[in-house]
Amino acid sequence: MLQLDIHPTGRHFLQIPGPSPVPDRILRAMSLPTIDHRGPEFGQLGLKVLSGVQQIFQTKHPVVIYPASGTGAWEAALLNTLSPGDQVLMYETGHFASLWNKMATKLGIATEFLAWEGRDEHLPNAGSWRRGVQADLIEARLRKDTEKKIKAVCVVHNETSTGVTSDIASVRQAIDAAGHPALLMVDSISGLASADYRHDEWGVDVTVSGSQKGLMLPPGISFNALSPRALEASKAARLPRAFFDWADIVEMNKTGYWPYTPSTNLLYGLSEALDMVLGEGLENVFARHQRWAAGVRAGVNAWGLPIQCADPAVYSPVLTGVITPEGVDADALRKLIHERFDLSLGTGLGKLKGRMFRMGHLGDSNDLTLVAMVAGVEMGLKLAGVKLAGSGVQATMDHFARHPAPLPRKNAA
Amino acid sequence: MLQLDIHPTGRHFLQIPGPSPVPDRILRAMSLPTIDHRGPEFGQLGLKVLSGVQQIFQTKHPVVIYPASGTGAWEAALLNTLSPGDQVLMYETGHFASLWNKMATKLGIATEFLAWEGRDEHLPNAGSWRRGVQADLIEARLRKDTEKKIKAVCVVHNETSTGVTSDIASVRQAIDAAGHPALLMVDSISGLASADYRHDEWGVDVTVSGSQKGLMLPPGISFNALSPRALEASKAARLPRAFFDWADIVEMNKTGYWPYTPSTNLLYGLSEALDMVLGEGLENVFARHQRWAAGVRAGVNAWGLPIQCADPAVYSPVLTGVITPEGVDADALRKLIHERFDLSLGTGLGKLKGRMFRMGHLGDSNDLTLVAMVAGVEMGLKLAGVKLAGSGVQATMDHFARHPAPLPRKNAA
Amino acid sequence: MLQLDIHPTGRHFLQIPGPSPVPDRILRAMSLPTIDHRGPEFGQLGLKVLSGVQQIFQTKHPVVIYPASGTGAWEAALLNTLSPGDQVLMYETGHFASLWNKMATKLGIATEFLAWEGRDEHLPNAGSWRRGVQADLIEARLRKDTEKKIKAVCVVHNETSTGVTSDIASVRQAIDAAGHPALLMVDSISGLASADYRHDEWGVDVTVSGSQKGLMLPPGISFNALSPRALEASKAARLPRAFFDWADIVEMNKTGYWPYTPSTNLLYGLSEALDMVLGEGLENVFARHQRWAAGVRAGVNAWGLPIQCADPAVYSPVLTGVITPEGVDADALRKLIHERFDLSLGTGLGKLKGRMFRMGHLGDSNDLTLVAMVAGVEMGLKLAGVKLAGSGVQATMDHFARHPAPLPRKNAA
Amino acid sequence: MLQLDIHPTGRHFLQIPGPSPVPDRILRAMSLPTIDHRGPEFGQLGLKVLSGVQQIFQTKHPVVIYPASGTGAWEAALLNTLSPGDQVLMYETGHFASLWNKMATKLGIATEFLAWEGRDEHLPNAGSWRRGVQADLIEARLRKDTEKKIKAVCVVHNETSTGVTSDIASVRQAIDAAGHPALLMVDSISGLASADYRHDEWGVDVTVSGSQKGLMLPPGISFNALSPRALEASKAARLPRAFFDWADIVEMNKTGYWPYTPSTNLLYGLSEALDMVLGEGLENVFARHQRWAAGVRAGVNAWGLPIQCADPAVYSPVLTGVITPEGVDADALRKLIHERFDLSLGTGLGKLKGRMFRMGHLGDSNDLTLVAMVAGVEMGLKLAGVKLAGSGVQATMDHFARHPAPLPRKNAA
Repeated sequence: MLQLDIHPTGRHFLQIPGPSPVPDRILRAMSLPTIDHRGPEFGQLGLKVLSGVQQIFQTKHPVVIYPASGTGAWEAALLNTLSPGDQVLMYETGHFASLWNKMATKLGIATEFLAWEGRDEHLPNAGSWRRGVQADLIEARLRKDTEKKIKAVCVVHNETSTGVTSDIASVRQAIDAAGHPALLMVDSISGLASADYRHDEWGVDVTVSGSQKGLMLPPGISFNALSPRALEASKAARLPRAFFDWADIVEMNKTGYWPYTPSTNLLYGLSEALDMVLGEGLENVFARHQRWAAGVRAGVNAWGLPIQCADPAVYSPVLTGVITPEGVDADALRKLIHERFDLSLGTGLGKLKGRMFRMGHLGDSNDLTLVAMVAGVEMGLKLAGVKLAGSGVQATMDHFARHPAPLPRKNAA
Repeated sequence: MLQLDIHPTGRHFLQIPGPSPVPDRILRAMSLPTIDHRGPEFGQLGLKVLSGVQQIFQTKHPVVIYPASGTGAWEAALLNTLSPGDQVLMYETGHFASLWNKMATKLGIATEFLAWEGRDEHLPNAGSWRRGVQADLIEARLRKDTEKKIKAVCVVHNETSTGVTSDIASVRQAIDAAGHPALLMVDSISGLASADYRHDEWGVDVTVSGSQKGLMLPPGISFNALSPRALEASKAARLPRAFFDWADIVEMNKTGYWPYTPSTNLLYGLSEALDMVLGEGLENVFARHQRWAAGVRAGVNAWGLPIQCADPAVYSPVLTGVITPEGVDADALRKLIHERFDLSLGTGLGKLKGRMFRMGHLGDSNDLTLVAMVAGVEMGLKLAGVKLAGSGVQATMDHFARHPAPLPRKNAA
Repeated sequence: MLQLDIHPTGRHFLQIPGPSPVPDRILRAMSLPTIDHRGPEFGQLGLKVLSGVQQIFQTKHPVVIYPASGTGAWEAALLNTLSPGDQVLMYETGHFASLWNKMATKLGIATEFLAWEGRDEHLPNAGSWRRGVQADLIEARLRKDTEKKIKAVCVVHNETSTGVTSDIASVRQAIDAAGHPALLMVDSISGLASADYRHDEWGVDVTVSGSQKGLMLPPGISFNALSPRALEASKAARLPRAFFDWADIVEMNKTGYWPYTPSTNLLYGLSEALDMVLGEGLENVFARHQRWAAGVRAGVNAWGLPIQCADPAVYSPVLTGVITPEGVDADALRKLIHERFDLSLGTGLGKLKGRMFRMGHLGDSNDLTLVAMVAGVEMGLKLAGVKLAGSGVQATMDHFARHPAPLPRKNAA
Repeated sequence: MLQLDIHPTGRHFLQIPGPSPVPDRILRAMSLPTIDHRGPEFGQLGLKVLSGVQQIFQTKHPVVIYPASGTGAWEAALLNTLSPGDQVLMYETGHFASLWNKMATKLGIATEFLAWEGRDEHLPNAGSWRRGVQADLIEARLRKDTEKKIKAVCVVHNETSTGVTSDIASVRQAIDAAGHPALLMVDSISGLASADYRHDEWGVDVTVSGSQKGLMLPPGISFNALSPRALEASKAARLPRAFFDWADIVEMNKTGYWPYTPSTNLLYGLSEALDMVLGEGLENVFARHQRWAAGVRAGVNAWGLPIQCADPAVYSPVLTGVITPEGVDADALRKLIHERFDLSLGTGLGKLKGRMFRMGHLGDSNDLTLVAMVAGVEMGLKLAGVKLAGSGVQATMDHFARHPAPLPRKNAA
């Protein structure tokens, strides 16, 4: 029998910023028998989930669901809109923005990678990895592109490697202010269904997302939310594509089916996730994450450790990056915490490796789970010899006690 | 679809002293298809679980598994050994000892209910509900029974209503010292597979237990572990019995089957539970609970609230009862904590109602879950206006950090 | 990992007359996390299932749900209504009626066991084990009881050992015609939710039932449906009882809770089963079983093998007993069929052992599953050297094809 | 709650040639909690499944596991080995070969689509859709390619649209006989783990496969088994690729991890599937499918309906295509069978639409399930007014009874 935890007993605290803990309801829905993806029942399921994900993205336009993980959806966004050698403006918010940029380059796209050039007090080399997208830099760059050679602007909404949630509406305003026709493509893999996100209202052309974060599913399916302009662009785009091609999928989705075999059992899980998220209400979901994030940050502040995100205006409601004191190996700390306290934290990625760790506070969680996370980190920090300014756990508890969530109204049974 | 939690998201903290949280492995084993309880596979399952439960009780003699909850196993112990009007000596450790006494009376048994007559500082009326079994009282009473009319001595090992774990070996010594032939019958419903328990070594004749505590199963099956003397006594016992009769079951169990339909899917769960508990090793299981209990008590002590058990020698490793300050309704506190922090605590039972609550620390748990429990209670106490001497959470964290559990050795995958 | 099938692959055909196959929906509901049986959510669940089972029994009076298997509910019916030495009239329809009679005797009740004295062509020694309850015999006996010493008449509705479904209304009419005050107690363990059953309309005082047949749950919970007269009788009944005592349970059930720990996860399954059965509609459920039974009997008739039930008016809609030719060991046949074709059949019980086998056609099934059962038996019979008059499979298929079930109307997704 | 079946009760017969029914063991393994794909436990799982799938493909070389469905793995095989405009020789065995050819064309590859030009008695227009790959045609074509411009030969091993299993070793022999350096790329999506397949021994360079057929998993993950020559070719291949790129994956797989988020819960299922398939033994798995296929074909032959595969040497052990009489709409028949008998069959694809249906006999099945399938089709054919030459069900039953499978040896419990 499959063993997935070295600890003798108890429920693992999976506090990485995704995959997030999958609720029992979803795990059980996923374990229903696989059915014929061409049969009559499947079409009803298909129409339900396709309509539901539109509400999640806050869009009236098609959302493509891929039987592929999020990295595939990144590639899909590029392949469907661009041609070999096309110029694209990307923005360096962190490790995932860098990976997307690297992927685009690998696919033969000429990318330009904008970054904020400032320095912050801690981790001075982190540069733009501690800030949100600076829309004025994008506007300035687009104004210079008088020949309109730049085909798309690509930004990450919630940068999972840093805990920064950029202002997407400001990017659209920047593009419009520059009078530039570039498409706006956004990665909201870790932001969707946790942080406020409005595909249509914010004028996004392609939103890329995945299942294993705010939607509380295991990884394995991913999304491209489209705009009419994106669909139009796809007709002329010439990067080779077949599996990821929007056209056949969007056409066949009208009946609730897919041109090739979809990931049936993850779609069962998606159906359940949609019932949960839309049943709670998107506004409530967003407020819940903001409240949690503030509670966790209160704990980090009490320790006296710097938060990775240097601009409070763009703190992520999904995760909080914490910078360790110089000389304290963040990964050794994470290992100690995992072994001793059955708690998984996110590692520092790319150039932050060893100097920070990430605390996830998203999806299927609650106050006590987050207090436990802060407690586990606090115990680990002390065991690692880090001097703390104060008790993070007390600060988090105080925050949650003073800022009650709305009382539950869900009917049982 | 069944909804079992009013809270919008997250895993409920089920910290009552049983039913304890059921591990995913067990829930999944229980959800395997029901099979023919007369078919060839079933006999193999039967032999496996019957042999496994013997190891759990530390006995070489038969253990009867009932398709009934623990209350049924209480009744079974009485019906199989006694005749109408028989005299029995019971000992009042708390609410469950009282209920067992009440049941015996209802069944037509003449019970005598011994109790410690002293008073402790807090809750002076609690009397023997804050102490373990006083074996000297039993010895003295048996010595007076020169006609040997007392057929059995009945005690509770781990009193779930108070958090007191009595010394069972001392009760056997008392009976022997008095040269009395009475049977020793013990309720270890909430002690088994959490607190050290040795049916054969301690000379117990009937041990009653259930599934929903240390064995980490849902409620629904229960146990009678027997001694040769108990089996002998059952031949003469004349209280009417059929469903609970040992004889047919013990006989048919030799082949791994039952005379009537057993609770198949809970037996699947039992098979998995035995793999888990025996795989970890009973000694390790007992040590794990002792360590947890000490950590939780450190928290209660830091608050300055009295622990229900007034004798540190018999603190329960399974649960800790906490006395609330006069004027603080423990049930209103529990309700507040349930609604705000998604945490279930045990209520004060019987004469303790409203003056205490119970914190479970048993079964499928870990350090952070218990820290979260202490944190939830601490936040609740503060919101209820209780002045605390200090931070319980910090004390619990300090205890767990300073007393590391053995590093996990379980192999994954 | 638990292995419950010696066959290398495929879904086992569990065609015994209970436990019947448990639908995936129910298995998954049962695997939801165990919750506090004293918490707020549990009361809602309790009220729902208590109200739902009343609809299943077609009664407005209390139904007691025991955390015990069906044998316990048999005992409960006797203990709650009778006193030591009471006279009871029971009727021998087969093995289970005999076991109930034996239990009553063991509990100290003076039973009289009526039986039809005739002989049928095949298995002449089977006697009343091939017929339904003969109400005229009961009436005649009661008329002789001028002192009204008989306290209860006990009959089995659907005799699982023979495949005979007795006319319960006729038994009530017989009692009334005799002007006798005896209670009417009925075992419908294998009839409930498959064969038409009306607790109130038919004037039954106690109906005993279980979970693992028409309700499609695993074994482990059982029922006593009561009448006001039964409740009244329980006040005077003096057989010792505690676990099975109706009074506390009925009282506490008013709030949706139980006086002791209920079988939580089986109650989750019950909640789902009620949604399924009541959602389909009891009339539809009964018609579905009648249609299936007729199809299976068409197969048996085509083979030229005698059906155990000798009176077509009382053929069971739940199971069909088949008599093997003299010299053909029915259990050797069953073993061959199990090993070769992954199909479990019911054994011949009691005095029928070796001369008959039982084919279940109840609960979570469909036409093709039953055709497969008939095919498996037919292959087994041929391999065992039995000469068959014709093809049972063809006859069953013809029946199902000519008598279409109503087209499904359930909405998917 | 998700409803996935319009039928009121019973287990659906999913007899399409994939997705095949997923065993309970696998569904439950998949429902274990999602864990950190960068944590210590995950690496152990990764190493286990990577090693296990090599045994399934019978290869010592790397197998890439994609978090994408089978169509993605088709694309991966092409992208990793070819450059824009490359010539490739494909062979038309049916609908899926045609789709792969269409995909290659769409990706900018110059394909040549070989086909057998003969005609068979029934469905004369079906042409090469009723035959296996003719290796001599491939050899002849390659001999003409004196400039060695053809970079790869692509064939389908088990053509799911027709029920034909081609001789892959003969294709390798043809390439070698022609002294041609082309890579051999094979789609065994529906053949793997059901029909004999030997990646190394047969000299295949890339084998494409998926999870939802012989591996008995839901759809969602897929495979590329590689050869050293394929890996070498990938270094020069210039079709743009990132998500599907072998290099990073193969490198990182050495430690049991993936460069981007894998489909965790489907990998749990894969782990369980490997235990099942390798535990049974590949030879036994192949023999089991051959025996089943012969039994089903016996039924079709008895009806007097033509089998789609016109060459008995290449009958598929996985599925059997059946040609309906002229004037009988195969899809109307399938709909009738689905509604009336809860049985899903495969539709006629592409140019065979309406003239054939496909019966799957693969994966988690057994004799009775297949008898039930044949019975369901037979009832449906009769209801549709098709005159049958004889009873298919009897023929299938006779075959299974006369050709016993090895007796099960699996140990239960």
